[in-house]
Amino acid sequence: MFYRSLLLPDLRMTLEAGDTDGLGEFCRALHAAIVAEVLAELDPSELWTVLRACEPELQAEIFGFFDETIQVSIVGVADRKELSKLIEVMAPDDRVDFLEELDEAQLEELMPLIAQAERADIRKLLSYPDGSAGSIMTTEYAWLREEITVGEALDELRRQAPDSETIYYVFIVNENRCLDGMVSLRELILAKRTAKLTDIMNHTVISVRVDDEAEFVAREIARYNFLAIPVVDSHNRLVGIVTGDDALDILEEEAYEDVQRTAAIEPINESYMLTPIFELARKRGVWLVVLLVAALMTAFALKSYEEVAKEHVWMAWFIPLVLASGGNAGSQSATLVIREIATRRMSRRDKFTIFFREIKLASLLGGGLALLSFLASVCLVDHVSQAVVVTLTVFLMVMMGTVCGAMLPIFIEQLGMDPALMSNPLIAALVDVMGVIIYFSAALAILGQVVEHVPAL
Amino acid sequence: MFYRSLLLPDLRMTLEAGDTDGLGEFCRALHAAIVAEVLAELDPSELWTVLRACEPELQAEIFGFFDETIQVSIVGVADRKELSKLIEVMAPDDRVDFLEELDEAQLEELMPLIAQAERADIRKLLSYPDGSAGSIMTTEYAWLREEITVGEALDELRRQAPDSETIYYVFIVNENRCLDGMVSLRELILAKRTAKLTDIMNHTVISVRVDDEAEFVAREIARYNFLAIPVVDSHNRLVGIVTGDDALDILEEEAYEDVQRTAAIEPINESYMLTPIFELARKRGVWLVVLLVAALMTAFALKSYEEVAKEHVWMAWFIPLVLASGGNAGSQSATLVIREIATRRMSRRDKFTIFFREIKLASLLGGGLALLSFLASVCLVDHVSQAVVVTLTVFLMVMMGTVCGAMLPIFIEQLGMDPALMSNPLIAALVDVMGVIIYFSAALAILGQVVEHVPAL
Repeated sequence: MFYRSLLLPDLRMTLEAGDTDGLGEFCRALHAAIVAEVLAELDPSELWTVLRACEPELQAEIFGFFDETIQVSIVGVADRKELSKLIEVMAPDDRVDFLEELDEAQLEELMPLIAQAERADIRKLLSYPDGSAGSIMTTEYAWLREEITVGEALDELRRQAPDSETIYYVFIVNENRCLDGMVSLRELILAKRTAKLTDIMNHTVISVRVDDEAEFVAREIARYNFLAIPVVDSHNRLVGIVTGDDALDILEEEAYEDVQRTAAIEPINESYMLTPIFELARKRGVWLVVLLVAALMTAFALKSYEEVAKEHVWMAWFIPLVLASGGNAGSQSATLVIREIATRRMSRRDKFTIFFREIKLASLLGGGLALLSFLASVCLVDHVSQAVVVTLTVFLMVMMGTVCGAMLPIFIEQLGMDPALMSNPLIAALVDVMGVIIYFSAALAILGQVVEHVPAL
Repeated sequence: MFYRSLLLPDLRMTLEAGDTDGLGEFCRALHAAIVAEVLAELDPSELWTVLRACEPELQAEIFGFFDETIQVSIVGVADRKELSKLIEVMAPDDRVDFLEELDEAQLEELMPLIAQAERADIRKLLSYPDGSAGSIMTTEYAWLREEITVGEALDELRRQAPDSETIYYVFIVNENRCLDGMVSLRELILAKRTAKLTDIMNHTVISVRVDDEAEFVAREIARYNFLAIPVVDSHNRLVGIVTGDDALDILEEEAYEDVQRTAAIEPINESYMLTPIFELARKRGVWLVVLLVAALMTAFALKSYEEVAKEHVWMAWFIPLVLASGGNAGSQSATLVIREIATRRMSRRDKFTIFFREIKLASLLGGGLALLSFLASVCLVDHVSQAVVVTLTVFLMVMMGTVCGAMLPIFIEQLGMDPALMSNPLIAALVDVMGVIIYFSAALAILGQVVEHVPAL
């Protein structure tokens, strides 16, 4: 924001003056991420004019920081030949992400212009299923054979550096490209130049499989504080690496998806502003309809108690209150339990522990809320026994909501589904139906006696 | 999980045999993160016996991977002298996090045993407020003066490596320790040994201030794909660095806090299992009480329509349905808008754009849900006009819920508060009160006429 307002007027003047050198200088002087943020304010053809003013490597670096909408918009205005040069020097993982956004016609135009080696790399990366380690890895990693010396290794790294995403982790492969070890640049720098690589390298390496889930890969990187993790195929052959900055992006994305599911939204991958309104409506509407159907059940349940409700009109006042107590308590439990499930595997014992913790918590919270409900409802109703109905229902609702909120995600996980599907509103809706039954059963149990009792006075 | 069950029996046997060499070997053979996970299964004194079997540097590395509960439990059983050695070689940022968990008495026992230099470092880091860049940075960074050659720089780095968290980013400071530039180890390796550092270094460096928020620091690291970011004081003096793996932890933590706030839970920093039950009850109870009070408003609102409700008992059936439509639509909007606010600064124009998008969306979603509600409610009620009341209310509720859900977080942010405080249940509760008014007003407007009309037949 700050950068944009400061740099944009100057850039526009340079653009209008047609000062190509000035534009190139602008791109080189700032961090590529900042350049990308400023350029995002221009329209695609202006943006391309600026980008053309610098060399393909820098173009590719800046291009990698644009979001996908801007990347695609540039395809519409850029010269095909120049664009294919840019694509050739892009990081393989960014490149595939970008190409996946293009339509058939655009790909058919561009692909033949891209060099053979890069085309093969693109095809290979595109073949990995979405959301797998293969789909997020880069193929530009530094690698060495173990029989060389540290000095030779450093010389070789200097050769590989321009084509490697990182040279801080170097992977050691045998003649079949099987992963045999790794060495960090730190270790190389600290070792004697004459030392044998095989003597200083780490022979056990933690790696992931090409078909592992992207989120798992990101969590492994986070768990070990790695800068990168090697990706191997089923024969332990090194096929790529995933770097720490990608892990960060993936975990951010996953976290946001979970938040959306919690609020009953089908996850929107792009930014809110960039998502077309009909897609937003669909992703929100689906769940609103599901929740409406669930609410209809509650309406049916309420209708079935028509006679009781007619006699006790005051009961309607507390319907939102008793139902919300259960729903809110359930949302809280579900949120905490879903997180537990997501971040660590649970044994059967852990599940029992959670169950008993939630029961204890529910008694505490239910007791407290019931007391408050009694004090408040007694001011609204005519007879203490009516307040007792509300109080008892609130207590039972908090108990039931908490237990459902804790148990439903575990149950859903047992079925092999994503527990985050049990969104908070859905738990609330399910608790509502049962809440109506509890509320009116409590009323019948308590007031049934009172009604009989009163005429006897 | 996998590691635990595989390695634990073997480790227990080594422990029982009192085989110190075997224990040391166990610690050295595996990644420190895995060792920590396996050791977490032992009781504190067993754990300390294993840890003692290896050198302090490795002890500190493994210790850094324990969660705080385990770290603190070790203090109860470890020899004071040995523990202070471990503390001395810990990474400064991990060390401060650990010491903050100890009580006065424990600190008074330990601190005098820690070497003077480390004690000064601890005091300095403890002085930065919680949640600031200063509180998460490490003081062990690699630094150079710019007047030397690349060859001299590499030699100096070899000296600094053992005491630096990373040597991949090296920071250049002047005689007053002001940050003047940075150079990556990659650049150093690729340059000629005789080149002057000042010719190859980057003279503009992106840095953060020691009082910047930790979350901001983490976002800057993510934005630029940095491995580390330098932290400077108000005089641009380099005081520390924050590394990429810490950024990852911070963003994960922030994301989880947001999820909890969304579900109306005061954020729990530790794991669910480790949080004492009364603390959990308090952090959940506070919000349940707030929401109960909000629900009482709804009860009051409903009571004020007592006469209408008596005449139209069927209206009670749809109370949960109409209120939930508004609450669910509001939760969805709030979730998406809170995210927009968190990840980018919004101009006034952006806010208007959001407002109009949400209005459009609300019309689409409200229209769809209203249609479904009509079809469903018409089966439940006696008269079409009653279904019309439900339909109109659902439409208005979705409109109002969506607009409130989008606008309340923006409003809260304008007041300088965290928009995540506007949790989904709170939005639902506020929408409920207004919902009652809408529902009964709609009934009075539509049925008022019908009631007059029916007797005229």
